[in-house]
Amino acid sequence: MIVTLHVCITCRASHPVLDGEPVPGARLHDALTAQETPEGVRIVPVECLSACTNGAAIALSAPGRWTYVYGHMTAEDAPQILAGAAAYAGTTDGIVSWRERVTIFRKRSLARIPPIG
Amino acid sequence: MIVTLHVCITCRASHPVLDGEPVPGARLHDALTAQETPEGVRIVPVECLSACTNGAAIALSAPGRWTYVYGHMTAEDAPQILAGAAAYAGTTDGIVSWRERVTIFRKRSLARIPPIG
Repeated sequence: MIVTLHVCITCRASHPVLDGEPVPGARLHDALTAQETPEGVRIVPVECLSACTNGAAIALSAPGRWTYVYGHMTAEDAPQILAGAAAYAGTTDGIVSWRERVTIFRKRSLARIPPIG
Repeated sequence: MIVTLHVCITCRASHPVLDGEPVPGARLHDALTAQETPEGVRIVPVECLSACTNGAAIALSAPGRWTYVYGHMTAEDAPQILAGAAAYAGTTDGIVSWRERVTIFRKRSLARIPPIG
């Protein structure tokens, strides 16, 4: 099954927007798609995850799994985000053990939501 | 279709825990279930929505709809939460127009996640 990594491409992450400069969310999306996407993961840009005060925000979700939302992500975090998404894809319920969870996912959780249904 | 209102019953909402006293998340759950549940809504307690620094937290979700997570909820907000859940249940995609959205949902959004699939 494919899991979805949503990336807010409108996140300003509390930075002023400079003319002609991509916002932090767009930069994060660019950094993620510039690398090889892990097997079982698809990256989907989204306009606003309504986590504006905690941006840049991303979310991991899939049918039947817990959804996770993380904040304060930057383009420099792209490798860890992809590793974390791969670990999420490798589960059946979305729950990655604490020991196997990447550091930024341990420290910058915004929320998790039980499987929807 | 039934929508789910998840309520974190372990949320301490940054308050010290007093012996024998229910935590703020449990108090919120009690306040919500003490009132009539709106049609089309079910209230489901959950242990930890991983929004600990922004608790007490709740989430609204249903298959095919946007998921919404709200923070800084208190027992006093129960009537508005139930009104907001009813409005969410009345949509097909989970998106309640800004004008019809209850004030606490406008101001205390933690995140929203696109329909999962």
